Amino acid sequence: MKFEVTILGSSSATPIFNRNPTSQVLNINERLYLIDCGEGTQQQMLRFDIKASRIDHIFISHLHGDHYLGLVGLLSSMHLNGRKKALKLVCPVQLKEIIDLQLRYSDTELQFPVEYIFTNAQQSEVVISNSDVIVETIPLDHRIACTGFLFKEKKRLRKLVKEKIESLDIPVAYYSVLKKGGDYTDEKGKVYKNEELTIDSAEPKTYAYCSDTMYNENYFGQIANATLLYHEATFLNDMLDRAVITHHTTALQAGEIALKTNAKKLLIGHFSARYKTLNELLDEAKINFPSTELAIEGKTFFIE
Amino acid sequence: MKFEVTILGSSSATPIFNRNPTSQVLNINERLYLIDCGEGTQQQMLRFDIKASRIDHIFISHLHGDHYLGLVGLLSSMHLNGRKKALKLVCPVQLKEIIDLQLRYSDTELQFPVEYIFTNAQQSEVVISNSDVIVETIPLDHRIACTGFLFKEKKRLRKLVKEKIESLDIPVAYYSVLKKGGDYTDEKGKVYKNEELTIDSAEPKTYAYCSDTMYNENYFGQIANATLLYHEATFLNDMLDRAVITHHTTALQAGEIALKTNAKKLLIGHFSARYKTLNELLDEAKINFPSTELAIEGKTFFIE
Repeated sequence: MKFEVTILGSSSATPIFNRNPTSQVLNINERLYLIDCGEGTQQQMLRFDIKASRIDHIFISHLHGDHYLGLVGLLSSMHLNGRKKALKLVCPVQLKEIIDLQLRYSDTELQFPVEYIFTNAQQSEVVISNSDVIVETIPLDHRIACTGFLFKEKKRLRKLVKEKIESLDIPVAYYSVLKKGGDYTDEKGKVYKNEELTIDSAEPKTYAYCSDTMYNENYFGQIANATLLYHEATFLNDMLDRAVITHHTTALQAGEIALKTNAKKLLIGHFSARYKTLNELLDEAKINFPSTELAIEGKTFFIE
Repeated sequence: MKFEVTILGSSSATPIFNRNPTSQVLNINERLYLIDCGEGTQQQMLRFDIKASRIDHIFISHLHGDHYLGLVGLLSSMHLNGRKKALKLVCPVQLKEIIDLQLRYSDTELQFPVEYIFTNAQQSEVVISNSDVIVETIPLDHRIACTGFLFKEKKRLRKLVKEKIESLDIPVAYYSVLKKGGDYTDEKGKVYKNEELTIDSAEPKTYAYCSDTMYNENYFGQIANATLLYHEATFLNDMLDRAVITHHTTALQAGEIALKTNAKKLLIGHFSARYKTLNELLDEAKINFPSTELAIEGKTFFIE
């Protein structure tokens, strides 16, 4: 099953010439999930050939402008391009008021339904569950209410061992029972244990999106063992004081968090505009966690 | 006196890969005036090296998103970059409510004052007047309340004829009187008429910004004889029906308007995303008005 994330923006609050504010698009089994939508996200989607019509879920972490100011423009474009199918919008409750006000004053009534699912920054909740994925909010520690998002693949059914099935000539009607873990009893009453006939499917993979937040161990348990951990790394650690005041994380801390939570791989982003190049941030994160990569715009990372 | 306009965005409602939504920056005597601020304007400013700190006036024509969705991001960046000096914001009254709501939910109190000047789409009013320029609103005909803006250079003082002044040995104390049109009386009581000693300054130049609007002769009188007329030209004339329904103008009509209002030069923009290239729009406008140019992003047009 495809499970990958493409970076559309990796800048923090003020944009810099070659970096856009935060946005990412997850592809899970060919369904697209947009996470945050900073100003210019729809232009980035055009640039990287991401079709807005394929996005049915949008997640907004918090109401600092660099995480949502591209949303009303994107919704308007979806509307103008004839969208009819529903869109699920997972976000803080106040965002509905902002969107409604802007649509009202532009005299726009969207031609597609928006189904709001409001986040609660005080406690984790399941906000989306479908055949591919379960998404939970991650309460983070920022200046205003902010939640990350944990995408957990649904556990797949067990896989049939083809040779066994064929040699026993098991009827097709039994396959779904076997995939769900049931045993097989043949016509003579002989029982074959499920473990002989199937193998377990791969462990579900997880993508943990943590932006914006300061270092706070409260959410470490929830993101433990992430297949891919995206964590903000706004500053180098020589600006730790500034990171604490503004409720952000340093690259050194991001590496430490990946290490402590046993992530398989770390992706850092949300870089301050003061850093014209990013190698120092990467090197600093790697001190604690060598398997780190930079969230470069346009780049796709496989969650595997 | 410098009087020029640089195009930051020329797309209509839905952005297209290589065109941003509407925004322009006027440079009048080294003061910058931003007109409209579509999504991504601050990124365009970075791209074309326009310093946000030099902008003290912003004009918003109307509340369709492609004309203002970049504004809150720009204000936030000004704030984060330490701006303290006041900003004049000329806009529909409802924009203040939108901005206040977004700032409130991001827990941001701007560190600089915003002085609002609200437009009235029913009648033309002077909204800015300083030593360089007078700016009037132009009531346009769009689906929602919309005003264009007419920038009129202030008439400069008369110019002294150096040779005359020197040959008569006129004291410096008289210069300002002469520049304002007064006569000179020498010590013996002889009167020298102002016309002998000075020449008139150049005729004030004007820039008329008309977006968004359908063809409507009501505003033709106000924009007459513009040095440079910017007019929207969303569609080719084979889509005139669509232009009428959506309250936009065709390129053919834009040329006709420039002709009828005796513009010196026409600049067309606000192109529909359906046009991948723009030459057909340019050719069509030129049928009525040969002195037409395309509002290409990053290009500067001298108003002379």
